[in-house]
Amino acid sequence: MPNLHLALLHYPVLNKRGETIASAVTNLDLHDIARAAKTFGVKTFYVVTPLEDQKDLVERIVSHWKTGEGALYNPKRKEALELIHVKDTLKDVLDHIHQKGMGFPKTVVTCARSFGRSIGYELFREMLKDGRSYLLVFGTAWGLSEEFLNIADFILEPVKGNTDYNHLSVRSAVSIILDRLLGREYYPAT
Amino acid sequence: MPNLHLALLHYPVLNKRGETIASAVTNLDLHDIARAAKTFGVKTFYVVTPLEDQKDLVERIVSHWKTGEGALYNPKRKEALELIHVKDTLKDVLDHIHQKGMGFPKTVVTCARSFGRSIGYELFREMLKDGRSYLLVFGTAWGLSEEFLNIADFILEPVKGNTDYNHLSVRSAVSIILDRLLGREYYPAT
Repeated sequence: MPNLHLALLHYPVLNKRGETIASAVTNLDLHDIARAAKTFGVKTFYVVTPLEDQKDLVERIVSHWKTGEGALYNPKRKEALELIHVKDTLKDVLDHIHQKGMGFPKTVVTCARSFGRSIGYELFREMLKDGRSYLLVFGTAWGLSEEFLNIADFILEPVKGNTDYNHLSVRSAVSIILDRLLGREYYPAT
Repeated sequence: MPNLHLALLHYPVLNKRGETIASAVTNLDLHDIARAAKTFGVKTFYVVTPLEDQKDLVERIVSHWKTGEGALYNPKRKEALELIHVKDTLKDVLDHIHQKGMGFPKTVVTCARSFGRSIGYELFREMLKDGRSYLLVFGTAWGLSEEFLNIADFILEPVKGNTDYNHLSVRSAVSIILDRLLGREYYPAT
């Protein structure tokens, strides 16, 4: 199983006008992305926000499903939400993975735009077989800032459909990207 | 472009105990699935519910983004939500597609379980090239009833990750299935 981790950033991200903001946490991001991560064998799902009230919100949602009524009502949801860790910054995420003895992961950022140095899905699928740890980073709101993209180790090609419309939700983008990287359709059981 | 339509059923679907119910409409289902449908060139996104209050809810959400404040704030959202049509029953959906002169579509249902007669993604991709109309049907809540699956023309293989966990959200399942059927990763631009 690849050593892949996922981070959903709420700061620093862009708003519609291109300004750097801290976005609010969306309940269904936690559920949908945790379920997709669990389905595709992602090791950890980091929710990154420095805002105290937003961190509290995530902890409350996760604990409802991990230990509260939700855990009895839907144990499968518990299994998925157990992948969630809340961190203040991306640096805290990298340190946490390192502390677990998995080394400092290479960061792979996602963006709706293409860059000269963007890597494709086939290449990243190959890289995932090298045993090193990778952190796949998604931005909320209008996406990750250019500065942020510049300092990442790798930028992943955007998901293209078969039209010019290029406005998937982050929940859809995460699902499709995990399927492209790890789905059985690409790696048939032998 | 394939002649593919999508229906999200809120009745008849199953609850956790396997009883047939009418489920509530989820706002983010409309947004995420409309955006994915627009990205992958799906012609129509039918939201199926016989409940008057739920139909009103869908119409209110859609009109906010099509003609209300939302249309000015985010015109890209408008383009996606314009794909939505609300219908009482699946029969009304089939009639609507027929009335648009596209013939009666073949129904292709999705399910988290596999059946002897399930078809794979590669076969369905080929079928989509034959120019006939197809309606891809997704259930909400705990999914479509067995009776319902039995009368469909085709059943599509479930989305498998690379684990035994098999509990994607309908939003994730739609996104992955459209990518598998229509994404450029499978049909590279030539």
